[in-house]
Amino acid sequence: MLSEFGLFLGRKRNRYVVKNGNAKNEILSTDVEQLHILNPGVSLSTSALRLALSNQTLVVLGSRNGWPHGFVIPAKISGTIRAKREQFLAYHDFRGAVLAKKFASGKSFNQRNLLKLLWKNRVKTEPGLAEKMYKASEEVERLAREIDSIEGSSVDKIRTDVMNREARASKEYWDAVSNLFPPELKFPGRKTRGATDPVNAMLNFGYKAILFVECWKAVYYSGLDPYAGYLHADRPGKPSLALDLMEEFRQHVVDRVLFTIFSKKMLKIDEIMQFDEVKNQQRLSKQTIQVLIGEITGQLESEVAYGRNSGERCLMKNVIQNQSRALVSYLMNPSKEYDPFELAW
Amino acid sequence: MLSEFGLFLGRKRNRYVVKNGNAKNEILSTDVEQLHILNPGVSLSTSALRLALSNQTLVVLGSRNGWPHGFVIPAKISGTIRAKREQFLAYHDFRGAVLAKKFASGKSFNQRNLLKLLWKNRVKTEPGLAEKMYKASEEVERLAREIDSIEGSSVDKIRTDVMNREARASKEYWDAVSNLFPPELKFPGRKTRGATDPVNAMLNFGYKAILFVECWKAVYYSGLDPYAGYLHADRPGKPSLALDLMEEFRQHVVDRVLFTIFSKKMLKIDEIMQFDEVKNQQRLSKQTIQVLIGEITGQLESEVAYGRNSGERCLMKNVIQNQSRALVSYLMNPSKEYDPFELAW
Repeated sequence: MLSEFGLFLGRKRNRYVVKNGNAKNEILSTDVEQLHILNPGVSLSTSALRLALSNQTLVVLGSRNGWPHGFVIPAKISGTIRAKREQFLAYHDFRGAVLAKKFASGKSFNQRNLLKLLWKNRVKTEPGLAEKMYKASEEVERLAREIDSIEGSSVDKIRTDVMNREARASKEYWDAVSNLFPPELKFPGRKTRGATDPVNAMLNFGYKAILFVECWKAVYYSGLDPYAGYLHADRPGKPSLALDLMEEFRQHVVDRVLFTIFSKKMLKIDEIMQFDEVKNQQRLSKQTIQVLIGEITGQLESEVAYGRNSGERCLMKNVIQNQSRALVSYLMNPSKEYDPFELAW
Repeated sequence: MLSEFGLFLGRKRNRYVVKNGNAKNEILSTDVEQLHILNPGVSLSTSALRLALSNQTLVVLGSRNGWPHGFVIPAKISGTIRAKREQFLAYHDFRGAVLAKKFASGKSFNQRNLLKLLWKNRVKTEPGLAEKMYKASEEVERLAREIDSIEGSSVDKIRTDVMNREARASKEYWDAVSNLFPPELKFPGRKTRGATDPVNAMLNFGYKAILFVECWKAVYYSGLDPYAGYLHADRPGKPSLALDLMEEFRQHVVDRVLFTIFSKKMLKIDEIMQFDEVKNQQRLSKQTIQVLIGEITGQLESEVAYGRNSGERCLMKNVIQNQSRALVSYLMNPSKEYDPFELAW
């Protein structure tokens, strides 16, 4: 991630060269998985961009605390468009409905698992708090099972029911975990767009700037269209399949990391935000962004239990790619079930 | 188009700033429709890229004489994906077959029209040559009509028949127009990939670097997937819908311009190519590229007769966008026919 103002990204054969004033740093291009630019004051040489394109390295243009603005994509895509055709056809049949349920219940089951993990870790030290987590986990589990049992032959017929239960499960989850945030931060409950309270701003940064980009990339390079989803399909203009896929990873990749940042007191409460005079509002400080990038990227680079045979382990970032490929397999051949990633507790 | 080595593209509020050594040039961003970078030695500031993204200005990363390597695209798309869903569904029904025929016959009819135009302009001065054009135009017309009358319920069933006649029409066309190229250039007949003779290299540059990009952009911003076509659908990895749409514009936007460049002797024959020592082969000279960019871009910026009521006129670049929107209309509502652009003669 390039987040400093005034950087220059160049190329020297198969290496990227990052210049910062007189300081110069060379990195072998095959060691770079993604070029993520978080600052408008960075310069890119077109030969460096071409190197990225030839290595299938996604280049992301983003702002300091919001969505990515744009991507640099290759003019030629790899492989055929068969998977994409199935992706669109599936919207109208049972596959779309199955996937919408899987994404939503996968998310809710992971919220349950994270609540159970929080319960387990606190049951001796903070039994009162642990009890809240346990109760919430049971309600969230009940709703997750309800999502899985919704019947309907296409996603349009079941979406309202699914979204409804998913929202209720999320409310339970956020109400319970709000106890883990320092009370000074006045967490107002989960908010997505334009949130200016520290917790939501941190969550939104983690989801949008880091996890979403991983999911967009996985979906794009596995040959699917990031804009044609199932669960999120009713929001025009949105990269809805990338958002669909993101649901099952939010808890492990972002939420957990945030709880750790607070429990380990990695940030001073009054230094989380800084005032942005141009926009006349609070925004995440440079330091907060550095901690978030470091910790969430670390989580993506660390191993998790993965696969039907417990005991298998896989880097989290590869799990995201594998899940996207599993999505392709399911679309091409629905007898192969799609199992969302499950957070171990 | 930025084709000089060592340029820097920056931003100052809503203006692009192009720096070349000490020379500096500012351009209002809304006056720029496309940023096309043809040289690996250009630097781009991310704030200039963001300005382009917010204006829906396509940024194209290309090489000096080949395909574009990549595009900078916005992370959010405009509008819904309804058109894209129909695009994929249409592959399997009569709409895909109709469109494949329209693109192919549209191309052939324009080849016929250009042959008739060449006949008309030469019938008094070079009656022998004019006669060749006329004969070829009749054969091409016959094949174009055959394409339109092919019957079949889906594109897969008719593609071979369509491609066959389209190839025969193209052979007739290129055999006839080859008389317009200076004999010293030894035009070997039309070749696409890796052609190193001057005429094919110029044609390929015009199609790939300029016309294709206009078509890709039109298709992308009208909400369709540039990679899922009908006529070209059997070539994996190719931006086949952009290539499909391009067929009906090749003759007016590129071929005609090339005939003019030769008839007006705008280039010295022995300066068309230059030797590329790195690749150890001939390639288009800088001067040829400048002339091609100037003339073809001029053609895109000039008016043509357009629409069912003859007498209406429209800038060529807008015709391409309109045809892409007509494609969307047809996909959403096949009672609205899709009429390819027709070159007036």
